[in-house]
Amino acid sequence: MNSSPVLELAIDLMSRESVTPEDAGCQPLMIERLKALGFAIEVMHFDDTLNLWARKGTQAPLFAFAGHTDVVPAGNLKDWRTPPFEPTLKDGYLYGRGAADMKGSLASMVVAVERFVEQYPQHSGSIAFLITSDEEGPFINGTTRVIDTLVARDEIIDMCIVGEPSSTEYVGDIVKNGRRGSFTGELTVKGIQGHVAYPHIAKNPIHQALPALTELSQVEWDNGNDFFPPTSFQFPNLNSGTGASNVIPGELHAMFNLRYSTEIGHHQIKERVYQVLDQYDFDYDLKWTLNGEPFLTATGDLLTAVVDAVTTVNGKAPQLLTTGGTSDGRFIAKMGAQVIELGPVNATIHKVNECVKAEDLDRLADMYQNVLINLLGK
Amino acid sequence: MNSSPVLELAIDLMSRESVTPEDAGCQPLMIERLKALGFAIEVMHFDDTLNLWARKGTQAPLFAFAGHTDVVPAGNLKDWRTPPFEPTLKDGYLYGRGAADMKGSLASMVVAVERFVEQYPQHSGSIAFLITSDEEGPFINGTTRVIDTLVARDEIIDMCIVGEPSSTEYVGDIVKNGRRGSFTGELTVKGIQGHVAYPHIAKNPIHQALPALTELSQVEWDNGNDFFPPTSFQFPNLNSGTGASNVIPGELHAMFNLRYSTEIGHHQIKERVYQVLDQYDFDYDLKWTLNGEPFLTATGDLLTAVVDAVTTVNGKAPQLLTTGGTSDGRFIAKMGAQVIELGPVNATIHKVNECVKAEDLDRLADMYQNVLINLLGK
Repeated sequence: MNSSPVLELAIDLMSRESVTPEDAGCQPLMIERLKALGFAIEVMHFDDTLNLWARKGTQAPLFAFAGHTDVVPAGNLKDWRTPPFEPTLKDGYLYGRGAADMKGSLASMVVAVERFVEQYPQHSGSIAFLITSDEEGPFINGTTRVIDTLVARDEIIDMCIVGEPSSTEYVGDIVKNGRRGSFTGELTVKGIQGHVAYPHIAKNPIHQALPALTELSQVEWDNGNDFFPPTSFQFPNLNSGTGASNVIPGELHAMFNLRYSTEIGHHQIKERVYQVLDQYDFDYDLKWTLNGEPFLTATGDLLTAVVDAVTTVNGKAPQLLTTGGTSDGRFIAKMGAQVIELGPVNATIHKVNECVKAEDLDRLADMYQNVLINLLGK
Repeated sequence: MNSSPVLELAIDLMSRESVTPEDAGCQPLMIERLKALGFAIEVMHFDDTLNLWARKGTQAPLFAFAGHTDVVPAGNLKDWRTPPFEPTLKDGYLYGRGAADMKGSLASMVVAVERFVEQYPQHSGSIAFLITSDEEGPFINGTTRVIDTLVARDEIIDMCIVGEPSSTEYVGDIVKNGRRGSFTGELTVKGIQGHVAYPHIAKNPIHQALPALTELSQVEWDNGNDFFPPTSFQFPNLNSGTGASNVIPGELHAMFNLRYSTEIGHHQIKERVYQVLDQYDFDYDLKWTLNGEPFLTATGDLLTAVVDAVTTVNGKAPQLLTTGGTSDGRFIAKMGAQVIELGPVNATIHKVNECVKAEDLDRLADMYQNVLINLLGK
């Protein structure tokens, strides 16, 4: 059963304990294989993060596979049935940290490219790999900085498949053709501290803020569209008070996060929030963090190629969704690239006993290879 | 200047470091003086707290002085201009912890009674002292337990002056003839924790609670009356969230406190709160603490006697107020007693450099003595 070259490479990568931001020898392993195919290798070491930009060909279109070699920590070792960094095949599944997120995808990508290049040594366009070791971390020195470097020298990716685990029941049932944006606000409402027995000489920021927070929580931001659910607004944190029962607090801190569709921009969100707050009479500070802008690949060669490739392998078209958290796809889409996420089943990612169906990795390699054929196999 | 017997006793009491629940020899000092006047002494030692019930006479009416020998901690010693437990006379003021809250009052009470008994050895009624060493603490083993003991043997105080510092500009400018009630609720709203990217499979307790909390904060509980301001409602604490920006919290905790007038009872408050909450569709727990019921001495012999006594000394009638925090007066009023609080200026209580105008303690002794004359001097 250990005979598949995809599985062999996946196991090799998973044996390396590359907890963010460590690469632990994963990229050198990939470099070795890609070099043999004629890829030009560029290692971009930014602070604690190792990044790889590998490119074969100089022509357009430039197609890239994107992914990461880092993994999240193992968690409680006692809860693992097999050691997290000793990949184990059992009952048709490959167990180990990174099996699904996303060393399995990396193996599928490399083998798919090897097969494609053997099949089409004179393929059109260019093939690239954009690999980082900090996708699970603060994403400061990873994909963003590689993109900045590429943009600075006008090397623009036209189409990109991110190998994030997009599937839920079987590989390729779901393809992510976009992601919602994420925008966070940290609101501080400033009252005047005092004794609860003397409310007339204090100002309770909880009382001041409540109507405004209620209104914010009830705003309808948009109705979504064919690809995006309506923009959602959540308060993950709300805190005020000294703990004592007889003290009116001086400040209230509320954090809110929007997961927003392409029907609204973060500037519009900001404007609307200020509009709501400024109806009320209280002092506040508001700090914004744009965690990621939304992206959408609604049409285009890449989408057509991916849908066709998945349908060929599965006998069934994938569902296109934009749900879930953010991914590095947002940074790549920002340079104007068509971006699609296609990877294994995500049921066990970030959990103990992470695993992937062994044959899914071979199917994924077939899908990736078919995408290459559809796009560059002329 | 140190010649006043009131000041001398105040200084003697203030030299003893009686931080709650320590009495540090204060009550024995008072006992010595009261015994000499023919008081029957009953020491009630409940756990860590020393209480004194001293009574002279067996007839009705039973008039009592109530007070405490404990003081709050000194706070930052560096900020004291004189050592907190070395009472110091300076520029007409007596400095030291307990000067205003309330060893000064205790000295005034004892000297007033000494003078009154000398003047009226055959006075009518009975005079008592109800003194505790835990008024500044958890008030579990102090006045409440003495009252329970008295009630159990059917010894009911008819009229009581509590020596709490009721004044603001000069001694006797304000007399407290009641106090608001204090009622606290601890609300837990139960949602379902989840990822902010998947709000449809979570339930944000912040969002669930906001409209209800807003409504609670805006309820008009009553309009107060001649003696009480309208009942006030405050949220001293409101907390929810894990700290992370991407997690919808599972629970919200809100604490509210009402300072309520005699226009509403705590049962009515409870009912109204449930009425508001039950309009909304969320799970919650609510825990109540009745910190103190309100009391009011709107008419009666005691009020008349106090107003007259203060007017005699000051040439000006006192203002009657019910503002401020709770006091042990609530426990005494509960047994059916008329209760009035009359004591020194409260500007420096619980602060560093606590002080009282030296001559105010003599004036206070005069007021107390006049009250005794008005009530029992026949």
